[in-house]
Amino acid sequence: MFQSVITGSGSYIPTEVKKNSDFLGQQFYANDAPLTQPAEQIIKKFQQITGIDERRYVLPELTISDIGYLAAEAAILDAGIDQEEIDQIIVAHNFGDMRENGRQSVMVPAIACNIKQKLGILNPNCIAYDLIFGCPGWLQGVIQMDGLFKAGIAQKALIIGAETLSRVIDKYDRDSMIFSDGAGAVILESVEMPQQQRGILSSCAQTYAYTEVDYINMGKSFSPVPDPETMHIKMNGRKVYEFALLHVPHAMKLCLDKSGRNIMELKKIFIHQANEKMDEAIIERFYDLYGITEYPKDVLPMSIQWLGNSSVATIPTLYDLVLKHKIPEHTLEPGDLIMFASVGAGMNINAVCYRY
Amino acid sequence: MFQSVITGSGSYIPTEVKKNSDFLGQQFYANDAPLTQPAEQIIKKFQQITGIDERRYVLPELTISDIGYLAAEAAILDAGIDQEEIDQIIVAHNFGDMRENGRQSVMVPAIACNIKQKLGILNPNCIAYDLIFGCPGWLQGVIQMDGLFKAGIAQKALIIGAETLSRVIDKYDRDSMIFSDGAGAVILESVEMPQQQRGILSSCAQTYAYTEVDYINMGKSFSPVPDPETMHIKMNGRKVYEFALLHVPHAMKLCLDKSGRNIMELKKIFIHQANEKMDEAIIERFYDLYGITEYPKDVLPMSIQWLGNSSVATIPTLYDLVLKHKIPEHTLEPGDLIMFASVGAGMNINAVCYRY
Repeated sequence: MFQSVITGSGSYIPTEVKKNSDFLGQQFYANDAPLTQPAEQIIKKFQQITGIDERRYVLPELTISDIGYLAAEAAILDAGIDQEEIDQIIVAHNFGDMRENGRQSVMVPAIACNIKQKLGILNPNCIAYDLIFGCPGWLQGVIQMDGLFKAGIAQKALIIGAETLSRVIDKYDRDSMIFSDGAGAVILESVEMPQQQRGILSSCAQTYAYTEVDYINMGKSFSPVPDPETMHIKMNGRKVYEFALLHVPHAMKLCLDKSGRNIMELKKIFIHQANEKMDEAIIERFYDLYGITEYPKDVLPMSIQWLGNSSVATIPTLYDLVLKHKIPEHTLEPGDLIMFASVGAGMNINAVCYRY
Repeated sequence: MFQSVITGSGSYIPTEVKKNSDFLGQQFYANDAPLTQPAEQIIKKFQQITGIDERRYVLPELTISDIGYLAAEAAILDAGIDQEEIDQIIVAHNFGDMRENGRQSVMVPAIACNIKQKLGILNPNCIAYDLIFGCPGWLQGVIQMDGLFKAGIAQKALIIGAETLSRVIDKYDRDSMIFSDGAGAVILESVEMPQQQRGILSSCAQTYAYTEVDYINMGKSFSPVPDPETMHIKMNGRKVYEFALLHVPHAMKLCLDKSGRNIMELKKIFIHQANEKMDEAIIERFYDLYGITEYPKDVLPMSIQWLGNSSVATIPTLYDLVLKHKIPEHTLEPGDLIMFASVGAGMNINAVCYRY
């Protein structure tokens, strides 16, 4: 049988560290009204909810094509493959290449084509395209490639998530402190094996876009001197939180049940690094759906404390950090059952069960 | 056996007609230097090469989410399906939602999510995402869905191409006259049938992104008063022409040969409406690869004369126009062998053989 196996991973951690204390001088607004609490208090509350102490931004000269390429190069090296054997390159993102202080998203040609060029891949039968699916875009690329492998259309794929949210945030909005930059990548291969020892066991994807379509969207700045031409990433935090708690645990259960495995076998959950409290609440409800009131404390590797929320990049980066022993308290052994899960703009949700 | 069949189509023809004569007052530049020929002469030569007499732009209040929705609604009606049965919505585009005179591409949430919302589709298992693959994006959506159907992941898809190039053109550049707005959509279904009477027979997709990556890209205006912050769609016309003539006929041959059919059976070729002379030269070389020096005059339906080049929208729009008898000299009969083929930014190429 053929199984879809991650054979290499890579990530790019941006070099500019932005600490919570760097926001102390910022006047925050909620819509048109300035927030009356001192910045110190706002930041403290922010830290308690999100778990974020600091985040990373890229240098001014870098775009997602650059950092996506660096993550991709590391993943190819890690997999030990000949890059000319790659059939498909998928890049998940939401804003294309943006310059610092710029306003324009550039994705002609597609970011995947830029990265293919930077890698120096010549094979014309390696097709390169971008996938837009909110924060769950990278995991959706994995799900999609698993399907195309099953159809016999491809055997080896490079799947990248890259984002520079620092360039679309509204600095007058508290939520701007959540967002960060980053890139992660994996090589996914269709591998023949006598039985299902490794690889993707099951997946699930959903789009709730009726009343939910604008929970995360683009909107005007809260700045007292508005610039009607420039749009920033905006989030209805309360709605997103309620939505995630209502729907993500069920999607994860659907996925796990499809795999035929028991929740007690689950070693790690690589969840989109959206917000620490929200992520923990999702996992709590997920276990609760199986009648387990306390989830295993070591099931949830987190990187949000120092990397923030870099959208499509969080899961492949977190996975790469664990595999490269950069989060030493979390390790994986061959045969371990793990899950990936994400939620974001759309509103989109997805999950994958995987045997390491 | 299961075959991927187009069961409905729809398109949106923008309402603002922009004639070649509307450009008579425009001073054109090539890079920094003004063109010395009179506009009348430039436009005449442009018309002779591209075949374009006029093109369509959308009204200021419309974006690709709006026109993509209108095309999608028509396709669903045409297919006569219950829209809640759709598994996947793919929107191919290159610039997201852009406002008139705006600069910013908006695609958070993804355009496919906006369109799902406008259609009022509630089913959360219908996932909605965008695909960025240059002008061949819509056809790539068809190829991708055919693969996901084969994998048993989906059975019914809505595939949309929508673009408003009028909002990214540089009016000081002659090439701006090529580009236009539009949207087309189809319903693709996995249909069980005793033998291969209908549907997709074969496909081919390629990405040449080494020396070719910047043949179509984003660059600064030729305006004498430059705006360094705003990028426009730019094309190295000569390189694109040479590239297309070198590679597209071979990709089409690869696809046709895969299908096992004879070129003499081919009734129609729905080619991306890029440029009339280039499209004709591609078809000539394609037939030439089979030793046929003169291709059948009725094989090539064209709409570029009055619709211009609307990127991802040209093929689904052209297909819809032929099926709805709006290009009366071209008709299709059940069983007819047809081809779709496209080329664009990336540089990407694809082709599909299809039995109507």
